[in-house]
Amino acid sequence: MTLNVGVIGVGMIGQDHIRRLTHVLSGARVAAVTDVDLDRAKSVAGDLPDVRVHDTGQDLVGDDGVDAVVVASWGPTHEEYVLASIDAGKQVFCEKPLATTREACERIVDAEVAAGRRLVMVGFMRRYDAGYRAMKDTLTRGEIGAPLMFHSAHRNPSVPPSVTTEGVVVDTCVHDIDVSRWLLDSEVAAAQVFLPRRTAHAAEQLQDPLVLMLEMANGVLVDIEAAVNIGYGYDIRGEVLGETGTVELAESSTVIVKRDGRYSGRVPTDWRERFIRAYDVEFQEWLDAVAVGRSTGPSSWDGYAATVVTDAGVQALRSGERTPVSMREQPDLYRGAGRAAGSTGTD
Amino acid sequence: MTLNVGVIGVGMIGQDHIRRLTHVLSGARVAAVTDVDLDRAKSVAGDLPDVRVHDTGQDLVGDDGVDAVVVASWGPTHEEYVLASIDAGKQVFCEKPLATTREACERIVDAEVAAGRRLVMVGFMRRYDAGYRAMKDTLTRGEIGAPLMFHSAHRNPSVPPSVTTEGVVVDTCVHDIDVSRWLLDSEVAAAQVFLPRRTAHAAEQLQDPLVLMLEMANGVLVDIEAAVNIGYGYDIRGEVLGETGTVELAESSTVIVKRDGRYSGRVPTDWRERFIRAYDVEFQEWLDAVAVGRSTGPSSWDGYAATVVTDAGVQALRSGERTPVSMREQPDLYRGAGRAAGSTGTD
Amino acid sequence: MTLNVGVIGVGMIGQDHIRRLTHVLSGARVAAVTDVDLDRAKSVAGDLPDVRVHDTGQDLVGDDGVDAVVVASWGPTHEEYVLASIDAGKQVFCEKPLATTREACERIVDAEVAAGRRLVMVGFMRRYDAGYRAMKDTLTRGEIGAPLMFHSAHRNPSVPPSVTTEGVVVDTCVHDIDVSRWLLDSEVAAAQVFLPRRTAHAAEQLQDPLVLMLEMANGVLVDIEAAVNIGYGYDIRGEVLGETGTVELAESSTVIVKRDGRYSGRVPTDWRERFIRAYDVEFQEWLDAVAVGRSTGPSSWDGYAATVVTDAGVQALRSGERTPVSMREQPDLYRGAGRAAGSTGTD
Amino acid sequence: MTLNVGVIGVGMIGQDHIRRLTHVLSGARVAAVTDVDLDRAKSVAGDLPDVRVHDTGQDLVGDDGVDAVVVASWGPTHEEYVLASIDAGKQVFCEKPLATTREACERIVDAEVAAGRRLVMVGFMRRYDAGYRAMKDTLTRGEIGAPLMFHSAHRNPSVPPSVTTEGVVVDTCVHDIDVSRWLLDSEVAAAQVFLPRRTAHAAEQLQDPLVLMLEMANGVLVDIEAAVNIGYGYDIRGEVLGETGTVELAESSTVIVKRDGRYSGRVPTDWRERFIRAYDVEFQEWLDAVAVGRSTGPSSWDGYAATVVTDAGVQALRSGERTPVSMREQPDLYRGAGRAAGSTGTD
Repeated sequence: MTLNVGVIGVGMIGQDHIRRLTHVLSGARVAAVTDVDLDRAKSVAGDLPDVRVHDTGQDLVGDDGVDAVVVASWGPTHEEYVLASIDAGKQVFCEKPLATTREACERIVDAEVAAGRRLVMVGFMRRYDAGYRAMKDTLTRGEIGAPLMFHSAHRNPSVPPSVTTEGVVVDTCVHDIDVSRWLLDSEVAAAQVFLPRRTAHAAEQLQDPLVLMLEMANGVLVDIEAAVNIGYGYDIRGEVLGETGTVELAESSTVIVKRDGRYSGRVPTDWRERFIRAYDVEFQEWLDAVAVGRSTGPSSWDGYAATVVTDAGVQALRSGERTPVSMREQPDLYRGAGRAAGSTGTD
Repeated sequence: MTLNVGVIGVGMIGQDHIRRLTHVLSGARVAAVTDVDLDRAKSVAGDLPDVRVHDTGQDLVGDDGVDAVVVASWGPTHEEYVLASIDAGKQVFCEKPLATTREACERIVDAEVAAGRRLVMVGFMRRYDAGYRAMKDTLTRGEIGAPLMFHSAHRNPSVPPSVTTEGVVVDTCVHDIDVSRWLLDSEVAAAQVFLPRRTAHAAEQLQDPLVLMLEMANGVLVDIEAAVNIGYGYDIRGEVLGETGTVELAESSTVIVKRDGRYSGRVPTDWRERFIRAYDVEFQEWLDAVAVGRSTGPSSWDGYAATVVTDAGVQALRSGERTPVSMREQPDLYRGAGRAAGSTGTD
Repeated sequence: MTLNVGVIGVGMIGQDHIRRLTHVLSGARVAAVTDVDLDRAKSVAGDLPDVRVHDTGQDLVGDDGVDAVVVASWGPTHEEYVLASIDAGKQVFCEKPLATTREACERIVDAEVAAGRRLVMVGFMRRYDAGYRAMKDTLTRGEIGAPLMFHSAHRNPSVPPSVTTEGVVVDTCVHDIDVSRWLLDSEVAAAQVFLPRRTAHAAEQLQDPLVLMLEMANGVLVDIEAAVNIGYGYDIRGEVLGETGTVELAESSTVIVKRDGRYSGRVPTDWRERFIRAYDVEFQEWLDAVAVGRSTGPSSWDGYAATVVTDAGVQALRSGERTPVSMREQPDLYRGAGRAAGSTGTD
Repeated sequence: MTLNVGVIGVGMIGQDHIRRLTHVLSGARVAAVTDVDLDRAKSVAGDLPDVRVHDTGQDLVGDDGVDAVVVASWGPTHEEYVLASIDAGKQVFCEKPLATTREACERIVDAEVAAGRRLVMVGFMRRYDAGYRAMKDTLTRGEIGAPLMFHSAHRNPSVPPSVTTEGVVVDTCVHDIDVSRWLLDSEVAAAQVFLPRRTAHAAEQLQDPLVLMLEMANGVLVDIEAAVNIGYGYDIRGEVLGETGTVELAESSTVIVKRDGRYSGRVPTDWRERFIRAYDVEFQEWLDAVAVGRSTGPSSWDGYAATVVTDAGVQALRSGERTPVSMREQPDLYRGAGRAAGSTGTD
């Protein structure tokens, strides 16, 4: 009854998923782990009952006692572990990005299509956030008419000094890109980047904030503000302008305090506080689907699309020009199911 | 075309009304002033063009160049100036209270009834506040069904050390009492006072906060929280519970600021900031009505009722008991018009 | 490692807890069930793996394969199952009420004191709600000074026609009573009931809404509005007035929609929507504590206090008078730990 | 003491200003009117005491009984009346636009510079709105650090079928342009237009919504969403992203209503409801300044800048390209005073 999960990569994210599988969610246990740092893998395993430590991700995937795989290793290694899982016919949850190049993503899509069924779910957790889900439902019910624009803002209190401007497009904006595709039910047709006045709080090499503008295939215009040294909190904003109304994320504070001449509510401190529930829901839906042999959630196609668009975003950043986004034909395997999966649970 | 107004009492409130008549509103000018402190009257008049200074309020009322009278003197003097105005057939705007005793209020009501027409408006400015008006409109349109309860809170940042607990009932709660009668379209049937834990920020003789509970004749229950050393701002709250919904005053901040981990809006600093527009609207509606020979706004009956209820409140404070409120029969002159006047403008 | 839980009573609440233990939370499984309706118990067990069905709650408590007990049966049966659990030295989670009479609650307290350690947790789930926890934290950090008043409102869209006015005090207000004791860190000293204008939407025998006013031992005044046929939603409101500020529950909508001339957010439909997370957190904290042999959460003393206060509330409803609340001396076992437990997790 | 104002153009806006001068504000009266439709001018004058009707605007400006001039005629006629007023040494309030071409605006600036003092105020009323003023104050006090971006949205419920896409840039966005210059204390360096998916509710020739993006000279990036058939209300949104925080316009509803599963507040119906107070304040500040011989508010330079930027916006709309904005050197007359005037009252 209990799903045996193998976890590849036990850094911060991997350990958080292990905590989730072990102490928060129902129906699964961690059966095996591995990590590029084997000592770390052994240390993590030592805190858990009956966990095997494998030398490589390939070994872990091949372990008969592993029913499903979580890939939380360094991005460039995702491809091989996901391909191995598909090859083994095992369901795999892969943290974003699905893979770091468009070609790698295509190889995964090809492999999955060849396998004839969806085995991969990509960790775009915003689709599981109560706020974004309510936005999606509002659109689906037609409460505000057809969507025309989507204003998105992604604000971090700060980032490590090593973060680059391209990194902001690739690692920060990717969430807004995926949410745009999912909310608006359309692929991205073009990208453009705008550079506002720089904040004095950014490291020298970093253009912060920036705006990534997306033209969706259905004409909806998306503007994504990324400000990653904003100081005041971790603030994720989103508003869809429809033909007859709007829907926007509400503030998330659970209480209002009045003091010192102000009424006020809390802004989250970091992504953990803001999205911890979304991660739990995302994982539980994956576990529930895997337990009954179904697939769910953001697909390889969504992972591929995200990488293609962030590639275009980087190119647009470099050129300063509007950059068209070209994607291959979508395989039948992903039709219908793909974009709505995060909303409907299973397909 | 310009209404010549005489102002009795040029203290803080009187001077504010003079500023309003002179620099803010249209259609009127200050033609005469008087004050118990004649030097102050002369000084105020000196800043204005063509203003006569009278030795007494009676003289001012009798001045043929005075079309209408504003009474902003010390409470115990209100009766004589209002009676003089009625006697002279001149419209009079009287700051609250109409008079300091029930008997004095009755004499005014009797005089007005004898005169056969309404000449008195009492300065309950909350009826002119956009928020309270929207609450009243919500009720009148039946959007939340019949009212069942009214929760009111009256919070001052601080009060002078001389303020007494009885003074809080008489001078602070009187606004909530008038609003209750007006919003709920009913007289008060009984009053009771409750004494919560005292704040450490009140002067020694003061029980702060307190709760004045009113039972309306139509059964609606009103709880008025008066907290007059709350520090954080001047905060007037109100919520009506109806059979199928509620209506409450919104926060009044015009912007939301995000910084330091909070989103926040401003709470007003004092009654001026919170109600300055209500005072302007109240006065303009009075001037407009007077200009065409009509009466408007809270009537002598409303002033009488307020004094009767604050009397009962004081008695309830002293006894700790539920105290019935008994009022005389309402003269025909005030039927219909009285309570709704603040909303409908004129009668 | 997995905790084997026995569930007594598999009606709506019991089944919901079984779902939670089986499909939502980590670290436990349902090992045994029983119900006054044995067929229902068998049917529920049939959907789960390896669950024993017992003829009686006593048998279930005595089952060596049951590590801890959940009591979700009819209120009058709580006492015997809780006493049996204490007798067996097993931790027991008892849905509110702990017991239906003061005397029964005292017997439980006595038994637990005799056992020398806390074994009972009572299901006052509001202490686990993110909003109430943030209110408690705001008070504990001293952000608004000492509490002076607590305004609480408990609004249900509707109740079955069988619900009585006394039932509203006992079953509805009990949550506000427990929250008052916990938030304000004080026992209740007296209770009084006020009856506002009746809504036309209540069944004939029901006085709805009503106000239960509590005087806390530390002087804080609490007013609890219970309106159980309000139609518009399930709306739980709370505001603490402190010496220098206030803290109130925020609205819980995750998005704001603008259409048809309004901006608006969702009010929860029912208690499940409003408190589903609180139930999960409550149960997980209980499981985590039980797993390491510790006790947590609202204690027998809290259950006893709630029953004593609802008794006083019923008496106050009948008499119309202020009714003092007298409680026995608090055993040392509950000092300190009792009221704060819901906040601090374990003691 | 009373200022005698002459009004050129008595259409909808002109009549509204006449109402304001006559019935709302203090210190002024309408002494003379004229209109291209003389019958309309006579009709309007007939409702007012002692108003002269002139055949032409030039005659009105030349009337010795006219102290100051209000220009509310058709845009293309503004130039000649403003120039005539400057020539006559009379202060003039000119509704936007100052003039319909860049060259006309320059002639006005030249004339004013030649006159050696500011005589012209342009009717950009948003600078007098309480919300925008609070935004400006928040920036000025440094509460959110230096501004980096400004998100502005201008949403109309509907527009007449004759409105063109260029008209939206020129007549709708002009307010957001002026507010951007004023809030951000910088000129506009470039403009670009983006065309999102069209709403089905727009007339055939109209691209609605559109986005006008401005690069300010100080690097701040401004995105202006104009959606003029949004149906749900007249909704003006604005948010400044600063280095350490944000400030945004709050909702303006005065009450919150709960019913039918929602809590909600009102969105204004039209510009009158939203900005009526701003118009009053704007005019009163102008009257107060004129009365003491000072100038105030948005200057000819601001009017010139607005026209230059809307010209660039139209060119950007036509070309689809980023369009640099080039302005002449700012005359000393406008230094310092110009942009801040709306905030500081007088200069």
